[in-house]
Amino acid sequence: MTRTINRRAQCARFLPPRLRFRHCLALAIIVATPALADGWVDNVNGVTLDAQGKIIRFTGLTVTPDGKVGKLVQRGDKAPERPDWKLDGKGQTLLPGMIDAHGHVMELGFSALTLDLSDTTSLDQAKAKITAYAAAHPDRHWILGGGWNQEKWQLGRFPTAADLNGLAGDRPIWLSRVDGHAGWANTAAMSAAGVTATTKAPAGGRIESVAGKPTGVFVDAATALIAKAIPAPTSKDRDLAFAKAQDILLGFGITGIADMGTTLDDWNTYRRAGDTGRLAVRIYSYAFGIEPTLTIAAGEPTSWLYADHLRMVGVKFYADGALGSRGACLKKPYADKPGDSGLCFMDDAKMKNLMSRAAMDGFQVAIHAIGDRANDEVLTAIEDLAPTYKGDRRWRIEHAQIVDPVDLPRFGKNGIVASMQPVHQTSDRTMAEARLGAARLPGAYAWKSMLANGAHLAFGSDTPVESPNPFPGIAAAISREGADGQPFGGWQPQEIITREQALAAFTTGAAYAAFAEDRVGRLAPGFRADFILVDHDPLDGPPASVRATKVAETWIGGKRVFRK
Amino acid sequence: MTRTINRRAQCARFLPPRLRFRHCLALAIIVATPALADGWVDNVNGVTLDAQGKIIRFTGLTVTPDGKVGKLVQRGDKAPERPDWKLDGKGQTLLPGMIDAHGHVMELGFSALTLDLSDTTSLDQAKAKITAYAAAHPDRHWILGGGWNQEKWQLGRFPTAADLNGLAGDRPIWLSRVDGHAGWANTAAMSAAGVTATTKAPAGGRIESVAGKPTGVFVDAATALIAKAIPAPTSKDRDLAFAKAQDILLGFGITGIADMGTTLDDWNTYRRAGDTGRLAVRIYSYAFGIEPTLTIAAGEPTSWLYADHLRMVGVKFYADGALGSRGACLKKPYADKPGDSGLCFMDDAKMKNLMSRAAMDGFQVAIHAIGDRANDEVLTAIEDLAPTYKGDRRWRIEHAQIVDPVDLPRFGKNGIVASMQPVHQTSDRTMAEARLGAARLPGAYAWKSMLANGAHLAFGSDTPVESPNPFPGIAAAISREGADGQPFGGWQPQEIITREQALAAFTTGAAYAAFAEDRVGRLAPGFRADFILVDHDPLDGPPASVRATKVAETWIGGKRVFRK
Repeated sequence: MTRTINRRAQCARFLPPRLRFRHCLALAIIVATPALADGWVDNVNGVTLDAQGKIIRFTGLTVTPDGKVGKLVQRGDKAPERPDWKLDGKGQTLLPGMIDAHGHVMELGFSALTLDLSDTTSLDQAKAKITAYAAAHPDRHWILGGGWNQEKWQLGRFPTAADLNGLAGDRPIWLSRVDGHAGWANTAAMSAAGVTATTKAPAGGRIESVAGKPTGVFVDAATALIAKAIPAPTSKDRDLAFAKAQDILLGFGITGIADMGTTLDDWNTYRRAGDTGRLAVRIYSYAFGIEPTLTIAAGEPTSWLYADHLRMVGVKFYADGALGSRGACLKKPYADKPGDSGLCFMDDAKMKNLMSRAAMDGFQVAIHAIGDRANDEVLTAIEDLAPTYKGDRRWRIEHAQIVDPVDLPRFGKNGIVASMQPVHQTSDRTMAEARLGAARLPGAYAWKSMLANGAHLAFGSDTPVESPNPFPGIAAAISREGADGQPFGGWQPQEIITREQALAAFTTGAAYAAFAEDRVGRLAPGFRADFILVDHDPLDGPPASVRATKVAETWIGGKRVFRK
Repeated sequence: MTRTINRRAQCARFLPPRLRFRHCLALAIIVATPALADGWVDNVNGVTLDAQGKIIRFTGLTVTPDGKVGKLVQRGDKAPERPDWKLDGKGQTLLPGMIDAHGHVMELGFSALTLDLSDTTSLDQAKAKITAYAAAHPDRHWILGGGWNQEKWQLGRFPTAADLNGLAGDRPIWLSRVDGHAGWANTAAMSAAGVTATTKAPAGGRIESVAGKPTGVFVDAATALIAKAIPAPTSKDRDLAFAKAQDILLGFGITGIADMGTTLDDWNTYRRAGDTGRLAVRIYSYAFGIEPTLTIAAGEPTSWLYADHLRMVGVKFYADGALGSRGACLKKPYADKPGDSGLCFMDDAKMKNLMSRAAMDGFQVAIHAIGDRANDEVLTAIEDLAPTYKGDRRWRIEHAQIVDPVDLPRFGKNGIVASMQPVHQTSDRTMAEARLGAARLPGAYAWKSMLANGAHLAFGSDTPVESPNPFPGIAAAISREGADGQPFGGWQPQEIITREQALAAFTTGAAYAAFAEDRVGRLAPGFRADFILVDHDPLDGPPASVRATKVAETWIGGKRVFRK
């Protein structure tokens, strides 16, 4: 009530005299009513799922003063009485805010502030871009970036330090592979990190080398050998990176994101944003291993903070690496590298110990598993632990990318969430064929099989590995074709899912995966008013149109946080 | 406004029918008014300082719905109209909430949960208490506690491991000295920590030994040799300790406390309390060294959190140890230990580097300085840094205990805050005489000289070194006599200050010292409604009555948080 009064006082003080009468009178009427009035979004092509997962269409909705959905309005319904504000949607499509079930918020921000090689299609192009970036940033002591993909370059080998030497004078260069599972250093970076021919790779890592001499590429755990030499970012740097990441997410209509691997520094960054009113996107945080939870929480997940904007829900572990860098742990060797079955990060006992440690404190467990052997191991661990850790646990398997078809039915048991990234399928398909051979493809990126077997499906982007734009994800899910329309009819098309299923995986499914389905993910009375206005209805038109969808406005908690 | 409506609905739902009519009608009237009404505390002997430091007396005050002081009411003033609630103070004295300018919140909690030897007057008594505690707590793997003081025991020596062996079976025992600057281990604790005759004391520490063999007492930095072997408390343990500390503080009328040395774990504990509505006392946090600020904050102090309940304001450093353990850094050797001048923790360059690092991020600097040489060093560092770090810096010297009289005028320059603990004077005086000799006493615990020289004086308890009860502190400040009335007329009585000055140092002075004087420390319109009801007026009666003051109620932010 104080708020209304203050607003009336401000009204008289700050408005031009000619506007005072009408506007302040309106406020005076509001003061006489028992509460602030709702807002009203009208004239939209509204689409949401309901509690049963069915599509509801509507033409407007009201927003309560505390930022929740009041009610959905149909054309012809009685108009809301004296709304506090009104937005004319001009016939645009209104969707629930998109939720990214798997992303790396701080990495997105830092990568957006560093050199991005993800659009390079050849090594020469990359070298030119590095040279230009180094020249444009003479103040950077290290040239940092990422996004390179030797597969896309059709290089037929990893790049080398020699490819980088000379591009940035004597400054160290360190560039992450597109999947984050490998890094590429120049000689100056290796010198700064003290890496020599005698340096041994740590467990779970590999140093690419020729005749015992490091070539410049470090895989999985071995990336730490270089990374540790980079000056740590300050908290101010982190705040800047977070702001950048949030801007990008809001611009793509992402209103919530599961942050997969929150460090203590990341958490403090989100808290600073929340403390100072800069936290707009909702973050469902999964700690980077058990340690952050032991410091931040006390025997249970944190409470929902900042009006449902932040919560540490669970813990992220890694069972293996990634496919591109042959770090994914396979049952049989890679088709394109005989004798190498990838990197399994943990033995069975260690995995179960870590999962137990998280589960006993009520934390949700989210385990990265790419290869079929890693998925098998995680499924076995869940099956072994489920009788002890009863109740609604929602064990999450992140990526669940390459699954032995015999293991697919196991995803339907014990309430498992399959947290998958549809765009990976289109980006990876050629590489996956090379790594796996034809016989192992039927269980790859098997979204429809997951649903058919009763798994809870949630979709994300794995940003910054891929763009956090969810619409290419929906397009991939309903077509299994790339942005180029290839392969026509879809890759392993038996795994195509419906538009409703794809939309659900990016909204209600992703909310469910984070224990947030009681407050976000769909538009219904009492739910947070998180919605977006877009230029295309994803339930309609060809996949290419869905992929090209543009977000006009993003609203979170009843407030507009992005406008094109 | 939503709140009012909810309350009316609850009103009908939860009240017995016979009460519904009158009570809910009253609420209905409130709904018709433009805001929730104030509360009214009436019929009190109200005392506060005003902005000029003068005493104001009043008979009541109003509390706004958001927990601030509405106005002070004098007998005969028009009564507040239709207050939301009313409290009859029954003639009790109402004071601003007491602010402890120097305490250790988590240590207070942990010490209250562990063995307390502070009331023992002999080694035999202590041994009996340890034996009983060990028997009563068979589940504790380590017997932990503190509060011992060999001076009080008149032991003439430090205690030894041999004194402890056998009291708790084969369990390790580790007991802190009353000042926290030394610890006492049994043989099992030294074995668990791997301490042997060859163990060397770290810089800034000392291992008490006879013929090269550790006797069991570890001074200052050497305490870490044992402490590192103690299993770390969990976050749940910390939450429990915090709750205990807060209960103790509220019971003594402490509504705010400067936490002198907040670790990252401490900070997360306060945040958990704030996040879940369990943070009642206001905490002005000074980080334990620079590291926590680098993680928690981003180039500036945090914002005020939880409606002014928590803020990281500054950084705490240590220039020396304590007097009892002869760790205080003196200009000339100890009178009772020739050749030993104590422990100076930092050279001039290191001290200035640390202070600069904090000051450049806008953090307030608080430096522990007990001995006259340590105080001289800190004063010099401030004088050297003040021209660079301009503006309102409020450099704090914690304890400022033994000051060479020639250095006293320097406290009046550069806006220095002398953060002192009056009860230390009464507890330490015999020991101080022994350590220092008569010639060095005129600059010891020199409160009046601090004020006369223009320093900003703030008082605290150094809890858990002393009880956080502020009333013995006020009594000491106005009498320089102990609880036993000794020495009659006061020790170094020229340093006695007035009651108004003592009250100010525990309220407005302590608020000023934490950059909080614009919101707490006195009762005036717009200030947080932090106040206490006590059974004695500290501006009246003999010091013994002031010392015995009992707190009946403690209110913070307009809410009662303690009732006797």
